[in-house]
Amino acid sequence: MQTTSVTRTGDCGHLIFSFLDSSFRSRVHASMHFTKMTSNSKKGRHSYLMVVAGALLCMIVGLGVGLIIGFLVDPKDPGDNPTPRLDKRAEYREAVKASNIRENLRELTQKPHVAGTEADLETAQAIKSKWLENGIDEAYLVPYRVLLQYPPDDESAANRAQILDNGGNVVFETALKSDPLGEDILTQDGIPAPFCAYSASGDVTGELVYCNYCTLDDLEYLSNTLLPGVNLTGKIFISRFGGTGRSTKVVNAQSYGASALLIYSDPADYSVNASLGLPYPNGPFLPPTAVQRGSIFVGVGDPLTPGYPSTDGAFRLDESDAGLPTIPVHPINYGDAANLLRRLTGPRPPLDWQGNLEGVNYEVGPGFKGVDSGRQVRVVVNSYSEQRLAYNVIGFIHGEIEPDRYVIIGNHRDAWGLGAVDPTSGTACLLEITRVIGDMKKNGWRPRRSIVFGSWGAEEYGLIGSVEWTEEYYHLLGSRSVAYLNLDIAVAGNYIFRPSASPHISPVMIEAMKNVLDPAPSYEGQSIYDSFLNKSDYNKDNLDESFIIPRIGAGSDYYGFVYGVGVSCLSGYFFYDADTYPTSFYSLYHTQYETFRLMEEFIDPGFVSHRAVSQIFGDMLLNLADSQVIPANVIHYSNYLFLYYSRLNVTSYRDKLVDHGLSMTYLERALLEFMRTTDTFQREIVPSVDKNDPLAVRAINDRIMLLERAFLDRNGLPGQPTERHTIFAYPKNQKAPYNTFPGLVDAIENIDENDPDADWSEVEKQLSILSYIIHSASSTLKREGAWTEVMPNGV
Amino acid sequence: MQTTSVTRTGDCGHLIFSFLDSSFRSRVHASMHFTKMTSNSKKGRHSYLMVVAGALLCMIVGLGVGLIIGFLVDPKDPGDNPTPRLDKRAEYREAVKASNIRENLRELTQKPHVAGTEADLETAQAIKSKWLENGIDEAYLVPYRVLLQYPPDDESAANRAQILDNGGNVVFETALKSDPLGEDILTQDGIPAPFCAYSASGDVTGELVYCNYCTLDDLEYLSNTLLPGVNLTGKIFISRFGGTGRSTKVVNAQSYGASALLIYSDPADYSVNASLGLPYPNGPFLPPTAVQRGSIFVGVGDPLTPGYPSTDGAFRLDESDAGLPTIPVHPINYGDAANLLRRLTGPRPPLDWQGNLEGVNYEVGPGFKGVDSGRQVRVVVNSYSEQRLAYNVIGFIHGEIEPDRYVIIGNHRDAWGLGAVDPTSGTACLLEITRVIGDMKKNGWRPRRSIVFGSWGAEEYGLIGSVEWTEEYYHLLGSRSVAYLNLDIAVAGNYIFRPSASPHISPVMIEAMKNVLDPAPSYEGQSIYDSFLNKSDYNKDNLDESFIIPRIGAGSDYYGFVYGVGVSCLSGYFFYDADTYPTSFYSLYHTQYETFRLMEEFIDPGFVSHRAVSQIFGDMLLNLADSQVIPANVIHYSNYLFLYYSRLNVTSYRDKLVDHGLSMTYLERALLEFMRTTDTFQREIVPSVDKNDPLAVRAINDRIMLLERAFLDRNGLPGQPTERHTIFAYPKNQKAPYNTFPGLVDAIENIDENDPDADWSEVEKQLSILSYIIHSASSTLKREGAWTEVMPNGV
Repeated sequence: MQTTSVTRTGDCGHLIFSFLDSSFRSRVHASMHFTKMTSNSKKGRHSYLMVVAGALLCMIVGLGVGLIIGFLVDPKDPGDNPTPRLDKRAEYREAVKASNIRENLRELTQKPHVAGTEADLETAQAIKSKWLENGIDEAYLVPYRVLLQYPPDDESAANRAQILDNGGNVVFETALKSDPLGEDILTQDGIPAPFCAYSASGDVTGELVYCNYCTLDDLEYLSNTLLPGVNLTGKIFISRFGGTGRSTKVVNAQSYGASALLIYSDPADYSVNASLGLPYPNGPFLPPTAVQRGSIFVGVGDPLTPGYPSTDGAFRLDESDAGLPTIPVHPINYGDAANLLRRLTGPRPPLDWQGNLEGVNYEVGPGFKGVDSGRQVRVVVNSYSEQRLAYNVIGFIHGEIEPDRYVIIGNHRDAWGLGAVDPTSGTACLLEITRVIGDMKKNGWRPRRSIVFGSWGAEEYGLIGSVEWTEEYYHLLGSRSVAYLNLDIAVAGNYIFRPSASPHISPVMIEAMKNVLDPAPSYEGQSIYDSFLNKSDYNKDNLDESFIIPRIGAGSDYYGFVYGVGVSCLSGYFFYDADTYPTSFYSLYHTQYETFRLMEEFIDPGFVSHRAVSQIFGDMLLNLADSQVIPANVIHYSNYLFLYYSRLNVTSYRDKLVDHGLSMTYLERALLEFMRTTDTFQREIVPSVDKNDPLAVRAINDRIMLLERAFLDRNGLPGQPTERHTIFAYPKNQKAPYNTFPGLVDAIENIDENDPDADWSEVEKQLSILSYIIHSASSTLKREGAWTEVMPNGV
Repeated sequence: MQTTSVTRTGDCGHLIFSFLDSSFRSRVHASMHFTKMTSNSKKGRHSYLMVVAGALLCMIVGLGVGLIIGFLVDPKDPGDNPTPRLDKRAEYREAVKASNIRENLRELTQKPHVAGTEADLETAQAIKSKWLENGIDEAYLVPYRVLLQYPPDDESAANRAQILDNGGNVVFETALKSDPLGEDILTQDGIPAPFCAYSASGDVTGELVYCNYCTLDDLEYLSNTLLPGVNLTGKIFISRFGGTGRSTKVVNAQSYGASALLIYSDPADYSVNASLGLPYPNGPFLPPTAVQRGSIFVGVGDPLTPGYPSTDGAFRLDESDAGLPTIPVHPINYGDAANLLRRLTGPRPPLDWQGNLEGVNYEVGPGFKGVDSGRQVRVVVNSYSEQRLAYNVIGFIHGEIEPDRYVIIGNHRDAWGLGAVDPTSGTACLLEITRVIGDMKKNGWRPRRSIVFGSWGAEEYGLIGSVEWTEEYYHLLGSRSVAYLNLDIAVAGNYIFRPSASPHISPVMIEAMKNVLDPAPSYEGQSIYDSFLNKSDYNKDNLDESFIIPRIGAGSDYYGFVYGVGVSCLSGYFFYDADTYPTSFYSLYHTQYETFRLMEEFIDPGFVSHRAVSQIFGDMLLNLADSQVIPANVIHYSNYLFLYYSRLNVTSYRDKLVDHGLSMTYLERALLEFMRTTDTFQREIVPSVDKNDPLAVRAINDRIMLLERAFLDRNGLPGQPTERHTIFAYPKNQKAPYNTFPGLVDAIENIDENDPDADWSEVEKQLSILSYIIHSASSTLKREGAWTEVMPNGV
């Protein structure tokens, strides 16, 4: 899973629920047609506690039509479809075996399988063979030649940070390789030495500065308040992981003139606390030797082929034109970080800048104090880049009735080492899913629609395998894909299932969660859905189904599907209780200690959470592949649009727009049209379809399938030309307080508030595009020909 | 019809067959796998004589599969489909009445109906009423608020050119308004005074220079050879119409520093020759008082909203940012032109610069000779721009079996005056088509698929109504449109039917032409198809059906459909014998003399050509709307790709690519894949489809429908971001010798041949995009899941 290759908030992990964020947790004062949206909240920034999106009472004015979007009234239970095919989901769920998943994981974690290595190809071939053996109709290796990067092979050239005395002698040096902590498995070749993929090479010496999470706010505070008058140019920055993505830290550090960036995992962010559990190898928590690896490229896909697939013969940018980092960046463990940080001089920052390193006061520098005064830090990065093959494996089961409609399920395969959590827990589940589905096929069953299986390569470098594939086949996938189900990490804890989904497809997730029992003894007899609500502190008396499943993020392979092609996505994984263990992400994320033993002994003994995930995903897969009418609820989409609209109201955005003479009328008109249209579609058109008329059913399904596509602007988003989703792409500007309409938010945030002569035309343009796209999306749901004759103003 | 708003060759009229141009007329030496492509030719640049694309014998090597693409062997006669529905085409054709069309045209030419005027709205309302009366299910006005321009209302401010003596006195002045030549109909309000839409306003004085057609070649020759050392900056240019589009002349004149541009119609280009016929009002030819109007904007659609619809609330550019002409441009009649040209001094140019104006030697200037020496020319343009409503009328007949599949037929409605030829001959036909179809519906018939009728507004200003509509609904249209049939001018002569079509849909055109009799007495008993072949001098012994119907152009409302949305298009109209009457386009094109009398007395007495056009279009409409399997032949598409590929071979392009180290391998590989795929699809998949399985048939039809879409690059073409068709869009660079792969050709032509250090990376990129898109298009035709496992080079 990528938490950092994309410079966004809310792209994964603990941030996945950020759409229900603090600004929204407070009472929402929705102006216009919303009378009340209530919400409640719990706990602080590291929790993912749930919120209630309250009664959404909408009075549609302006066109004289009153509509009430009911509360918890699902106009059509997707499970009700009288389908001529047997529902095989119960049989499927029953057949999933935890012991198989355990064995899959054990086999897959015998060797590190970093993208582009021989071991990665071996796993690809193994997956392909397994799928064919399981009974999948077809399976292919689909490789792309992409730019990858590796730490130096020779330890003498290893990446490192050092403290040099005034004579240039090395006083201290960070670990040159991964400490195996006595685990035999880790002494094998292939666990890469610590590095950040796509770092610039370099050998830089300078004074160290501590910059907290290296967010723009942090650097502004550092520059203006903590170290006013200090020239940060040429300083070596040290940041802790968390707060924002890796690549964003790099962009920010570069913009403040850093000559190099060190990043470490602070115990404060990764739960190293004896009262909670022990560090690896005696528990699932971070030892001082663990280093988080990861990509620091800000884009997605092969950096050399933006917008196009990296096939043979593809045009490739020079590396110098690819927007890669320009400074050396190196990740270090917190044992080494403490050795650097405790020597820093300078002011001691406020509490929220202070981590939990023993003996460290988190002075920010610049430079060292006491005996270390005058000593410099040296950062050496010698990683080398190469174009290598990243292998996808694509499998196929042909549908019986609608073979040209695809339900796709995928999971990346490459890992930063053994990857027992990320992503091999998912790969182990996907193999079990294919086994059960394959058995069903061997017994004569075939899905109504085709099922496509994807095992993606080089996800850790920036979602490369899946992005290249969606680039190569976007016409094909855009015309045939009903949904994409994303497995990545399947199990990083055994407490709560964390789902996410595109709005109108979320009923599929809810139904699957209702169909699977929570494996935890303390929740015996509860479905995953019920326990999810209980654990999440949703207010069950005041629940809008539209908002139960959080929106899809951007940190895994769904990215290319949803933002590039416009395919609705579903994702989810098991996690620990982040209230009890407040962490930035699971402790050993992307470290060398993601071992089978970690999973079996500490995270998911018995593999019961793996089993539950496999049951949920298979249930969704079969529901989508077999249902006669796609079990969606398009009203969820309009509710999301109104939620996002309400966020414009409750912040300064609406005031700013109105202050600058921009009218909300057209956006509001488009929203109301979309609300009416989704309501009519879901409550009248879908229920009245003649189930005996295959083309009538197909017409309904096509509208459902293509709704997500309708929100893509073929012209791309401003400043993000390969992102096209006008609703759910993420604003590029880091100042955006939370997720809502990315083009509009970026345009507003890019304006200097203090400039009275600022040009608001880009804001006007984005507001107009948003209105147009929503109106256009309505047309795709309407019965053919139902253009209404609305004369423009003044006619 | 737009001949000039788009800076392209081959966009209409006599250029429509330019794909079979002189470079291709010579024997084609196709390298690689082509053994022979023969062709023959006839006559010069103003003829549109046909060519034979000879036997295309393809040996597919490399994968060990031999394929012969047969000659005249249609793998599947589209008429063969056993469809459960009655074929209503004969009944339809029989019902079309010339007298009705005559009456339609008479009514519609009672008043000028320029876009944005009250009369234009009245025609829109009339069309809507008529359609509903005829039995169309639904009809709506769909207006857009767009930038339009008009000549000054007040004659004292009228646009004009003058000759000033040294004291500033007016020695000569061009006509300030349209001379009605005694036609009562033309004395009514509403025929606009001569103007070029979107000219800059201005009042400019300077020396006159004659620049022939104002092509880049002309201006280079003028500057380097005819007037070396003369500074052209600030000169007023005078050009004749023809040779290139209006807007291209303006762009070129601006690039050479002209302060203003006058454009006139030379008798040499518009057949003013007593032996052929008389000028209006005594014949169909150009009198000295006639002025061609037209748009000079280089883009399409509303200039203020590129890429987005001009709805209320839409963001609009400032006019100064819209790429509008920056100099005054004014069209004049040839009587006035002679008065200017005969006074010019300077060298007499070569013969191909000389027209047929009596007493004019076509000296190029600068400035005047003899008594006029020292006298200056003044150009005054006071046209005013306004945002006004352009009305589309959209009609709808719901399909019985596949209502969510659209066959669209459209025709623009606005004219530069009465527009009896352009476009009202088409409007008159479309009304008759709706009457007959409506009658069929009243008698209980309903088409299998839905039929959409479009009456477009403001086409003459730059295809505005249709482009805005396709921008607003591109998601909807992209997912549902089977084809677009374009009527514009229906009849500009009574000799030959000139068809054009997207490659794989052309069998529909051929079939319709076979089903309709040629109305000319001298071709009695021959079908339009047979007489077309005879008149075109095709070599019937050596005919490839793929190339019988020329490719679609860019000069009418199909533009937004095919290049923006990727909808396959069909178009056609009757024309005179351009061998006998060599003209740039029909004589009275866009002049004030496009009257009902012109049509009835001189162009189509008896309206038999109108009837034939209506029969052909109705036949195509019903064939597309009623056939169970869409009657296409995708092999035509691959043959076109190979034709375009062969053009790379027979020019210097291939050599240049190879000389610069660029490999043709990937393009050739993609082409062969596409050829194999289309062959399999057409010869195996289509014939074997189970006609009793509605979803299997739909799956076939969807692939056919979406094939054109598959050639769009969502990222846009280089320098033409709102054009996406990688095969059939037109190169932007005027140096491109003929139409083939626009992105690649532009990239090559944009390189300075004399610069050994020129950067070829854009060429490499475009070559790679082309290969990728063709490969990607293959995937959309393949049976699902049929990815082949081709390992990249070196594996």
